[in-house]
Amino acid sequence: MDRRQFLTAAAAAGLVGISHRTKAVAAALSPASGKQAVLRLSIQEDKMPDGDFEAKLDRLERWGFAGIELRGKGLPDRVEQIKKALRGRSIKVSAVCTGVDGCLISDRPELRDEAMRSVKKILTAAGELEAVGLIVVPAFNRHSTLEHRKARELLTGFARWDEEQPDREKALLQELGDHAAKNGTRLLLEPLNRHECYFLRTLVDAASICRDVSNPGIAMMGDFWHMTWEETSDLGAFISAGSYLRHVHIASRRRRKMPGEDGEADNYLLGFAGLKWIGYQDYISMECGSIGDRDTTIPAAAELIRKQWNQA
Amino acid sequence: MDRRQFLTAAAAAGLVGISHRTKAVAAALSPASGKQAVLRLSIQEDKMPDGDFEAKLDRLERWGFAGIELRGKGLPDRVEQIKKALRGRSIKVSAVCTGVDGCLISDRPELRDEAMRSVKKILTAAGELEAVGLIVVPAFNRHSTLEHRKARELLTGFARWDEEQPDREKALLQELGDHAAKNGTRLLLEPLNRHECYFLRTLVDAASICRDVSNPGIAMMGDFWHMTWEETSDLGAFISAGSYLRHVHIASRRRRKMPGEDGEADNYLLGFAGLKWIGYQDYISMECGSIGDRDTTIPAAAELIRKQWNQA
Repeated sequence: MDRRQFLTAAAAAGLVGISHRTKAVAAALSPASGKQAVLRLSIQEDKMPDGDFEAKLDRLERWGFAGIELRGKGLPDRVEQIKKALRGRSIKVSAVCTGVDGCLISDRPELRDEAMRSVKKILTAAGELEAVGLIVVPAFNRHSTLEHRKARELLTGFARWDEEQPDREKALLQELGDHAAKNGTRLLLEPLNRHECYFLRTLVDAASICRDVSNPGIAMMGDFWHMTWEETSDLGAFISAGSYLRHVHIASRRRRKMPGEDGEADNYLLGFAGLKWIGYQDYISMECGSIGDRDTTIPAAAELIRKQWNQA
Repeated sequence: MDRRQFLTAAAAAGLVGISHRTKAVAAALSPASGKQAVLRLSIQEDKMPDGDFEAKLDRLERWGFAGIELRGKGLPDRVEQIKKALRGRSIKVSAVCTGVDGCLISDRPELRDEAMRSVKKILTAAGELEAVGLIVVPAFNRHSTLEHRKARELLTGFARWDEEQPDREKALLQELGDHAAKNGTRLLLEPLNRHECYFLRTLVDAASICRDVSNPGIAMMGDFWHMTWEETSDLGAFISAGSYLRHVHIASRRRRKMPGEDGEADNYLLGFAGLKWIGYQDYISMECGSIGDRDTTIPAAAELIRKQWNQA
């Protein structure tokens, strides 16, 4: 029985669940201590059916979504227009997805400087829009040849757990975290799969960077698509992410389409059990294409997520 | 409230527990499907009070231990003597700890060849002694400057999840796994902390290597000492290790002494909850010094572990 078959079998047998005692642990571990996890659905703006921004928001309200995720590219110029469109609506900006120029952990200092300026500019816009955070990939594989350990040192200011005093001044994430916190938002580290970003592949590694940095403006996210290939347990991964986890991406688990479009492979039960364990309060956001008609497949995906959330 | 304070508070409030439903999940995930986790205590031979091998075994039987962990260095020459000493006793060899010459992921091919020969030789001895496995650290920091991704490729034969056909012939762990399985034992990858081994720091990373290799002779272990510094959740870590986890090391959590010698810091509840979740069947082995008199501190540590195991 492989992992997916087990998940399906476990779901069928109704085995996935969390006791009252573990919920109490979850509450104590959670950033919103004492709160029960909530499901807030979101989707990336460009994954919606064609139409202007207002038409997209109309659909999302009709489908019971709570958030919309925006692209970082060009966002600073759209802030006023977006604020106006959201006024009086039940939809909020969930998160902002990359759009960063340069490369944070490049071996070339000028690309690092460019990334620092770019991240700060988009963080400011994300803060104005009250987004949970700005999603940042420290480097895609093609963008950096910096040695793994050096790259981590650059981000956190230290690479040894037993260093007395990490060099806060030199840590890129301290400077960015301070800027994010000042603007009421966060930088969200995103682990990808090894094909796209070898440097950061697992949720626990991102959580451990967050712990090393320990800055209120630095948090992380998890993406079910990448987790399918890199994590050995969605449950273990989300528990390890704990209170550092502030955003989640979701997609089908074979072809990165709408959840449900890959049939039985699209099982999120143990992942959702993990989110419940940590008392997750933020968004689950769709980052995926669709094979079918989006006006049908998006609300169907939302329904599948709600159903599995209730089962987990 | 920091992590350790939470753990202590959770223990005090009796919050850590696993429901019947999660136990069923644990059973299904476990290598011994359907079995409830068991506690089998072990200790490294050289951590025992002075005395000959027989005297050590006498003490361990009196203290209720189930296993003894041996050093790999010189083991092939001790096999017959150890077999004889164990005959008719309740103590078994839990695991064999390193003693490997050379370096598996060295940048120098001759050191890799030396390590391959050395690991095979000790694996053969471990098999004769019916040990769960031989603990191997792919490289300590001082032994390799090989780039992180290349090192992983060397071990597994592929670094991309989407490669159709990993090059099995080139994967060091395939050759070693085949040798281990043929001898009825396993190579156990051990994640350390970044100060000792940057290459492999988290349980999920070791589990992911095991999954990539997918060889019955390749498994992994977890060590509470290193986990204290590198994992953000003992519970999440053991759940992610799942059925690949075949050995555990334990020590106090501040100074690497006997569990209990660091007082309230020595909380293993969430870790034990994780071991119960996965239906763990193998040994928890003490790898630590002691501040006090070992004839007192070792049985006291065993008692503390039993107590917390029952609470988890």
